[in-house]
Amino acid sequence: MKQYWRPGTMLNPLPAVIVSCGSTLKNRNLITVAWTGTICSDPAMCFISVRPSRYSHSILMEEMEFTINLTTASMAKATDWCGVRSGRDYDKWKECGLTPVEGVKVGCWYVDESPVAIECRVKQVMHLGTHDMFLAEVVNVIADESFIDQKTGALDLTKADLMTYCHGHYHALGRELGHFGFSVRKKKQKK
Amino acid sequence: MKQYWRPGTMLNPLPAVIVSCGSTLKNRNLITVAWTGTICSDPAMCFISVRPSRYSHSILMEEMEFTINLTTASMAKATDWCGVRSGRDYDKWKECGLTPVEGVKVGCWYVDESPVAIECRVKQVMHLGTHDMFLAEVVNVIADESFIDQKTGALDLTKADLMTYCHGHYHALGRELGHFGFSVRKKKQKK
Repeated sequence: MKQYWRPGTMLNPLPAVIVSCGSTLKNRNLITVAWTGTICSDPAMCFISVRPSRYSHSILMEEMEFTINLTTASMAKATDWCGVRSGRDYDKWKECGLTPVEGVKVGCWYVDESPVAIECRVKQVMHLGTHDMFLAEVVNVIADESFIDQKTGALDLTKADLMTYCHGHYHALGRELGHFGFSVRKKKQKK
Repeated sequence: MKQYWRPGTMLNPLPAVIVSCGSTLKNRNLITVAWTGTICSDPAMCFISVRPSRYSHSILMEEMEFTINLTTASMAKATDWCGVRSGRDYDKWKECGLTPVEGVKVGCWYVDESPVAIECRVKQVMHLGTHDMFLAEVVNVIADESFIDQKTGALDLTKADLMTYCHGHYHALGRELGHFGFSVRKKKQKK
Protein backbone atom coordinates (compact mmCIF):
# COMPACT_ATOMS: atom_id res chain seq x y z
CA MET A 1 0.00 0.00 0.00
CA LYS A 2 1.18 3.53 -0.78
CA GLN A 3 0.70 6.89 0.88
CA TYR A 4 0.78 10.18 -1.01
CA TRP A 5 2.66 12.98 0.75
CA ARG A 6 2.88 16.65 0.05
CA PRO A 7 5.92 17.70 -2.01
CA GLY A 8 9.11 17.42 0.03
CA THR A 9 12.83 16.77 -0.17
CA MET A 10 12.80 13.00 -0.02
CA LEU A 11 15.70 12.14 -2.32
CA ASN A 12 17.99 9.86 -0.28
CA PRO A 13 20.76 9.05 0.43
CA LEU A 14 22.76 12.19 -0.34
CA PRO A 15 26.33 13.33 0.19
CA ALA A 16 27.02 15.48 3.26
CA VAL A 17 30.09 17.49 2.35
CA ILE A 18 31.98 20.22 4.14
CA VAL A 19 32.23 23.26 1.88
CA SER A 20 35.09 25.66 2.57
CA CYS A 21 34.97 29.27 1.40
CA GLY A 22 36.52 32.66 2.14
CA SER A 23 39.97 33.80 1.06
CA THR A 24 41.04 35.75 4.14
CA LEU A 25 41.94 34.68 7.66
CA LYS A 26 39.00 36.77 8.81
CA ASN A 27 36.23 35.43 6.59
CA ARG A 28 37.28 31.84 5.93
CA ASN A 29 34.54 29.44 6.89
CA LEU A 30 33.11 25.93 6.66
CA ILE A 31 29.51 24.94 5.94
CA THR A 32 28.00 21.48 5.66
CA VAL A 33 25.84 20.93 2.61
CA ALA A 34 23.65 17.98 1.56
CA TRP A 35 22.01 19.89 -1.29
CA THR A 36 24.97 19.17 -3.57
CA GLY A 37 25.75 16.95 -6.55
CA THR A 38 27.39 16.54 -9.92
CA ILE A 39 25.52 18.27 -12.73
CA CYS A 40 27.77 17.71 -15.77
CA SER A 41 30.67 15.38 -16.71
CA ASP A 42 32.48 17.58 -19.22
CA PRO A 43 33.04 20.29 -18.27
CA ALA A 44 33.05 18.75 -14.79
CA MET A 45 30.46 20.74 -12.85
CA CYS A 46 29.01 20.58 -9.34
CA PHE A 47 26.48 22.61 -7.41
CA ILE A 48 25.73 23.58 -3.84
CA SER A 49 22.48 25.12 -2.63
CA VAL A 50 22.72 27.50 0.34
CA ARG A 51 20.15 29.60 2.18
CA PRO A 52 20.74 33.38 1.80
CA SER A 53 20.59 33.69 5.60
CA ARG A 54 23.71 31.57 6.04
CA TYR A 55 26.99 33.32 6.87
CA SER A 56 28.74 31.59 3.97
CA HIS A 57 26.21 32.85 1.44
CA SER A 58 27.57 36.40 1.24
CA ILE A 59 31.15 35.07 1.08
CA LEU A 60 30.19 32.85 -1.85
CA MET A 61 28.39 35.70 -3.60
CA GLU A 62 31.42 37.95 -3.20
CA GLU A 63 34.22 35.53 -4.04
CA MET A 64 32.40 33.09 -6.36
CA GLU A 65 34.70 30.25 -5.33
CA PHE A 66 34.44 27.31 -2.93
CA THR A 67 35.87 23.87 -2.25
CA ILE A 68 33.85 20.70 -1.68
CA ASN A 69 35.62 18.53 0.93
CA LEU A 70 34.44 14.91 1.02
CA THR A 71 33.65 13.63 4.50
CA THR A 72 34.56 10.39 6.24
CA ALA A 73 33.11 8.48 9.17
CA SER A 74 35.75 9.96 11.48
CA MET A 75 34.61 13.44 10.40
CA ALA A 76 30.93 12.78 11.20
CA LYS A 77 30.83 14.97 14.31
CA ALA A 78 32.65 17.87 12.61
CA THR A 79 30.37 17.52 9.59
CA ASP A 80 27.26 17.75 11.74
CA TRP A 81 28.64 20.62 13.81
CA CYS A 82 29.53 22.71 10.74
CA GLY A 83 25.94 22.26 9.58
CA VAL A 84 24.24 23.49 12.73
CA ARG A 85 26.60 26.25 13.92
CA SER A 86 27.36 29.59 12.26
CA GLY A 87 30.65 31.15 11.21
CA ARG A 88 29.28 34.37 12.69
CA ASP A 89 29.75 32.85 16.14
CA TYR A 90 32.71 30.49 15.78
CA ASP A 91 36.00 29.92 14.01
CA LYS A 92 34.79 26.58 12.71
CA TRP A 93 38.23 25.46 11.53
CA LYS A 94 39.58 25.84 15.01
CA GLU A 95 36.57 24.48 16.86
CA CYS A 96 36.46 21.33 14.73
CA GLY A 97 40.18 20.75 14.70
CA LEU A 98 40.21 20.68 10.91
CA THR A 99 43.43 21.75 9.20
CA PRO A 100 43.22 24.50 6.56
CA VAL A 101 45.55 24.16 3.58
CA GLU A 102 45.92 26.96 1.05
CA GLY A 103 43.92 26.38 -2.12
CA VAL A 104 45.65 25.64 -5.42
CA LYS A 105 43.35 27.08 -8.11
CA VAL A 106 40.96 28.95 -5.81
CA GLY A 107 41.49 31.50 -3.06
CA CYS A 108 39.92 29.49 -0.24
CA TRP A 109 41.54 26.83 1.93
CA TYR A 110 40.69 23.14 1.71
CA VAL A 111 40.38 20.59 4.53
CA ASP A 112 43.56 18.55 4.90
CA GLU A 113 41.69 15.68 6.60
CA SER A 114 39.42 15.12 3.57
CA PRO A 115 40.47 12.31 1.22
CA VAL A 116 39.35 14.42 -1.76
CA ALA A 117 38.85 18.17 -2.12
CA ILE A 118 37.16 19.62 -5.20
CA GLU A 119 37.98 23.24 -6.03
CA CYS A 120 35.09 25.00 -7.76
CA ARG A 121 34.47 28.32 -9.47
CA VAL A 122 30.88 29.59 -9.57
CA LYS A 123 29.47 30.14 -13.06
CA GLN A 124 25.91 31.05 -12.16
CA VAL A 125 23.64 31.64 -9.16
CA MET A 126 19.96 30.72 -9.36
CA HIS A 127 17.43 31.98 -6.84
CA LEU A 128 15.04 29.06 -6.42
CA GLY A 129 13.18 29.82 -3.18
CA THR A 130 14.53 29.03 0.28
CA HIS A 131 17.87 28.21 -1.36
CA ASP A 132 20.19 29.82 -3.89
CA MET A 133 21.88 27.32 -6.16
CA PHE A 134 25.54 27.90 -7.03
CA LEU A 135 26.40 26.15 -10.30
CA ALA A 136 30.15 25.77 -10.51
CA GLU A 137 32.89 24.38 -12.67
CA VAL A 138 35.46 22.06 -11.09
CA VAL A 139 38.88 23.66 -11.57
CA ASN A 140 41.05 21.26 -9.56
CA VAL A 141 40.81 17.98 -7.65
CA ILE A 142 43.09 17.36 -4.67
CA ALA A 143 43.44 13.70 -3.68
CA ASP A 144 45.18 12.30 -0.64
CA GLU A 145 47.94 9.93 -1.69
CA SER A 146 47.14 7.49 1.10
CA PHE A 147 44.08 6.39 -0.91
CA ILE A 148 45.94 6.04 -4.19
CA ASP A 149 47.37 2.68 -5.23
CA GLN A 150 51.06 3.32 -5.75
CA LYS A 151 51.30 0.71 -8.50
CA THR A 152 48.25 1.57 -10.60
CA GLY A 153 47.77 5.23 -9.65
CA ALA A 154 44.06 4.49 -9.14
CA LEU A 155 42.11 6.10 -6.34
CA ASP A 156 40.52 3.57 -3.99
CA LEU A 157 37.82 5.45 -2.14
CA THR A 158 36.59 2.29 -0.40
CA LYS A 159 39.58 2.76 1.92
CA ALA A 160 38.53 6.31 2.76
CA ASP A 161 35.45 5.28 4.82
CA LEU A 162 33.27 7.97 3.24
CA MET A 163 30.02 9.02 4.82
CA THR A 164 26.53 9.43 3.41
CA TYR A 165 23.43 11.20 4.71
CA CYS A 166 20.03 9.55 4.68
CA HIS A 167 16.84 11.15 5.95
CA GLY A 168 18.46 12.85 8.92
CA HIS A 169 21.03 10.16 9.70
CA TYR A 170 24.72 9.89 8.85
CA HIS A 171 25.91 6.46 7.75
CA ALA A 172 29.17 4.84 6.77
CA LEU A 173 29.10 2.93 3.50
CA GLY A 174 28.12 -0.71 3.90
CA ARG A 175 28.59 -3.89 1.92
CA GLU A 176 29.42 -3.62 -1.76
CA LEU A 177 26.55 -4.65 -4.03
CA GLY A 178 28.36 -4.51 -7.36
CA HIS A 179 30.33 -2.19 -9.59
CA PHE A 180 29.18 -0.12 -12.54
CA GLY A 181 28.34 -2.50 -15.40
CA PHE A 182 28.26 -5.67 -13.27
CA SER A 183 24.75 -6.53 -14.48
CA VAL A 184 25.97 -7.07 -18.05
CA ARG A 185 29.46 -8.44 -17.41
CA LYS A 186 30.06 -11.71 -19.18
CA LYS A 187 31.28 -14.43 -16.90
CA LYS A 188 34.72 -15.78 -17.69
CA GLN A 189 34.50 -19.19 -19.30
CA LYS A 190 36.29 -21.98 -17.55
CA LYS A 191 38.93 -23.60 -19.72
CA MET B 1 50.89 14.07 0.68
CA LYS B 2 48.42 15.30 -1.92
CA GLN B 3 48.10 14.87 -5.66
CA TYR B 4 46.45 17.42 -7.94
CA TRP B 5 44.24 15.95 -10.63
CA ARG B 6 42.64 17.49 -13.64
CA PRO B 7 39.03 18.59 -13.11
CA GLY B 8 36.71 15.60 -12.82
CA THR B 9 33.49 14.36 -11.28
CA MET B 10 34.84 13.22 -7.92
CA LEU B 11 31.93 14.11 -5.64
CA ASN B 12 31.11 10.88 -3.75
CA PRO B 13 29.02 9.08 -2.62
CA LEU B 14 25.97 9.95 -4.70
CA PRO B 15 22.46 8.55 -5.04
CA ALA B 16 21.83 6.12 -7.91
CA VAL B 17 18.14 6.44 -8.66
CA ILE B 18 15.94 4.92 -11.32
CA VAL B 19 14.14 7.68 -13.18
CA SER B 20 10.91 6.74 -14.92
CA CYS B 21 9.51 8.78 -17.80
CA GLY B 22 7.14 8.48 -20.73
CA SER B 23 3.34 8.60 -20.56
CA THR B 24 2.45 5.97 -23.15
CA LEU B 25 2.85 2.21 -23.22
CA LYS B 26 5.09 2.71 -26.23
CA ASN B 27 7.54 5.29 -24.89
CA ARG B 28 7.63 4.58 -21.17
CA ASN B 29 11.17 4.00 -20.02
CA LEU B 30 13.60 3.77 -17.09
CA ILE B 31 17.03 5.38 -16.82
CA THR B 32 19.49 5.23 -13.95
CA VAL B 33 20.93 8.56 -12.88
CA ALA B 34 23.64 9.48 -10.37
CA TRP B 35 23.82 13.10 -11.48
CA THR B 36 20.81 13.96 -9.30
CA GLY B 37 20.15 15.81 -6.06
CA THR B 38 17.97 18.19 -4.09
CA ILE B 39 18.41 21.83 -5.11
CA CYS B 40 15.82 23.66 -2.97
CA SER B 41 13.75 22.91 0.16
CA ASP B 42 10.75 25.16 -0.49
CA PRO B 43 9.55 24.82 -3.13
CA ALA B 44 10.90 21.27 -2.99
CA MET B 45 13.04 20.92 -6.10
CA CYS B 46 15.27 18.19 -7.55
CA PHE B 47 17.34 17.84 -10.69
CA ILE B 48 18.56 15.13 -13.00
CA SER B 49 21.29 15.55 -15.62
CA VAL B 50 20.99 13.42 -18.77
CA ARG B 51 23.06 13.18 -21.94
CA PRO B 52 21.16 14.34 -25.08
CA SER B 53 22.11 11.04 -26.75
CA ARG B 54 20.10 9.01 -24.23
CA TYR B 55 16.73 7.63 -25.32
CA SER B 56 15.02 9.19 -22.30
CA HIS B 57 16.29 12.67 -23.15
CA SER B 58 13.79 13.32 -25.96
CA ILE B 59 10.96 11.91 -23.83
CA LEU B 60 11.88 14.27 -21.00
CA MET B 61 12.11 17.24 -23.40
CA GLU B 62 8.70 16.45 -24.84
CA GLU B 63 6.76 15.60 -21.69
CA MET B 64 8.69 17.66 -19.09
CA GLU B 65 7.80 15.21 -16.33
CA PHE B 66 9.61 12.35 -14.62
CA THR B 67 9.63 10.33 -11.40
CA ILE B 68 12.67 9.66 -9.22
CA ASN B 69 12.42 6.13 -7.76
CA LEU B 70 14.75 5.49 -4.81
CA THR B 71 16.73 2.27 -5.09
CA THR B 72 17.42 -0.47 -2.56
CA ALA B 73 20.10 -3.14 -2.25
CA SER B 74 17.76 -5.72 -3.76
CA MET B 75 17.34 -3.42 -6.79
CA ALA B 76 21.11 -3.09 -7.38
CA LYS B 77 21.21 -5.28 -10.47
CA ALA B 78 18.17 -3.59 -12.05
CA THR B 79 19.64 -0.18 -11.22
CA ASP B 80 22.90 -1.00 -12.92
CA TRP B 81 21.19 -2.58 -15.92
CA CYS B 82 18.92 0.45 -16.50
CA GLY B 83 22.06 2.59 -16.56
CA VAL B 84 23.96 0.65 -19.21
CA ARG B 85 21.16 -0.50 -21.54
CA SER B 86 18.94 1.63 -23.79
CA GLY B 87 15.17 1.88 -24.04
CA ARG B 88 15.67 1.87 -27.80
CA ASP B 89 16.59 -1.82 -27.55
CA TYR B 90 14.62 -3.12 -24.56
CA ASP B 91 11.39 -2.78 -22.64
CA LYS B 92 13.30 -2.08 -19.44
CA TRP B 93 10.28 -2.48 -17.16
CA LYS B 94 9.75 -5.99 -18.45
CA GLU B 95 13.40 -7.01 -18.59
CA CYS B 96 14.05 -5.86 -15.00
CA GLY B 97 10.84 -7.25 -13.58
CA LEU B 98 9.92 -3.86 -12.16
CA THR B 99 6.23 -3.11 -11.74
CA PRO B 100 4.86 0.07 -13.32
CA VAL B 101 2.13 1.88 -11.39
CA GLU B 102 0.25 4.79 -12.95
CA GLY B 103 1.48 8.17 -11.79
CA VAL B 104 -0.63 10.36 -9.53
CA LYS B 105 0.32 13.95 -10.41
CA VAL B 106 2.43 13.19 -13.50
CA GLY B 107 1.75 11.19 -16.65
CA CYS B 108 4.54 8.65 -16.22
CA TRP B 109 4.48 5.43 -14.20
CA TYR B 110 6.44 4.93 -10.99
CA VAL B 111 8.27 1.82 -9.76
CA ASP B 112 6.16 -0.13 -7.29
CA GLU B 113 9.24 -1.80 -5.75
CA SER B 114 10.75 1.56 -4.72
CA PRO B 115 10.19 2.59 -1.09
CA VAL B 116 9.77 6.22 -2.21
CA ALA B 117 8.86 7.69 -5.58
CA ILE B 118 9.17 11.43 -6.20
CA GLU B 119 7.01 12.88 -8.97
CA CYS B 120 8.62 15.88 -10.64
CA ARG B 121 7.65 18.51 -13.19
CA VAL B 122 10.47 20.15 -15.15
CA LYS B 123 10.71 23.93 -14.77
CA GLN B 124 13.87 24.59 -16.76
CA VAL B 125 16.45 22.79 -18.89
CA MET B 126 20.07 23.96 -18.87
CA HIS B 127 22.55 22.88 -21.54
CA LEU B 128 25.82 22.53 -19.61
CA GLY B 129 28.04 20.44 -21.89
CA THR B 130 27.90 16.65 -22.09
CA HIS B 131 24.75 16.79 -19.96
CA ASP B 132 21.49 18.69 -19.95
CA MET B 133 20.25 19.52 -16.49
CA PHE B 134 16.51 19.22 -15.83
CA LEU B 135 15.54 21.41 -12.88
CA ALA B 136 12.19 20.25 -11.54
CA GLU B 137 9.65 20.89 -8.86
CA VAL B 138 8.48 17.99 -6.71
CA VAL B 139 4.71 17.69 -7.17
CA ASN B 140 4.03 14.50 -5.19
CA VAL B 141 5.81 11.98 -2.97
CA ILE B 142 4.66 8.36 -2.92
CA ALA B 143 5.84 6.38 0.11
CA ASP B 144 5.45 2.66 0.72
CA GLU B 145 3.47 2.04 3.90
CA SER B 146 5.72 -0.85 4.91
CA PHE B 147 8.38 1.71 5.88
CA ILE B 148 6.00 3.94 7.81
CA ASP B 149 5.60 3.52 11.55
CA GLN B 150 1.89 2.89 12.05
CA LYS B 151 1.88 4.60 15.43
CA THR B 152 3.84 7.77 14.67
CA GLY B 153 3.30 8.05 10.91
CA ALA B 154 7.04 8.65 10.52
CA LEU B 155 8.95 7.21 7.60
CA ASP B 156 11.82 4.94 8.67
CA LEU B 157 14.09 4.69 5.66
CA THR B 158 16.69 2.69 7.59
CA LYS B 159 14.36 -0.28 7.07
CA ALA B 160 14.34 0.26 3.31
CA ASP B 161 17.98 -0.84 2.78
CA LEU B 162 18.68 2.03 0.38
CA MET B 163 21.67 1.98 -1.91
CA THR B 164 24.36 4.55 -2.63
CA TYR B 165 26.91 4.90 -5.44
CA CYS B 166 30.55 5.62 -4.75
CA HIS B 167 33.23 6.00 -7.42
CA GLY B 168 31.88 3.21 -9.62
CA HIS B 169 30.65 0.92 -6.84
CA TYR B 170 27.18 0.37 -5.41
CA HIS B 171 26.99 0.05 -1.64
CA ALA B 172 24.33 -0.61 0.95
CA LEU B 173 24.24 1.87 3.84
CA GLY B 174 26.46 0.87 6.74
CA ARG B 175 26.64 1.65 10.43
CA GLU B 176 24.90 4.77 11.70
CA LEU B 177 27.32 7.52 12.74
CA GLY B 178 24.82 9.93 14.23
CA HIS B 179 21.71 11.91 13.40
CA PHE B 180 21.34 15.52 12.31
CA GLY B 181 22.23 17.75 15.28
CA PHE B 182 23.89 15.00 17.36
CA SER B 183 27.07 17.06 17.73
CA VAL B 184 25.28 19.73 19.79
CA ARG B 185 22.73 17.59 21.61
CA LYS B 186 22.83 18.08 25.33
CA LYS B 187 23.19 14.90 27.27
CA LYS B 188 20.33 14.12 29.61
CA GLN B 189 21.31 14.72 33.22
CA LYS B 190 20.98 11.79 35.55
CA LYS B 191 18.69 12.50 38.47
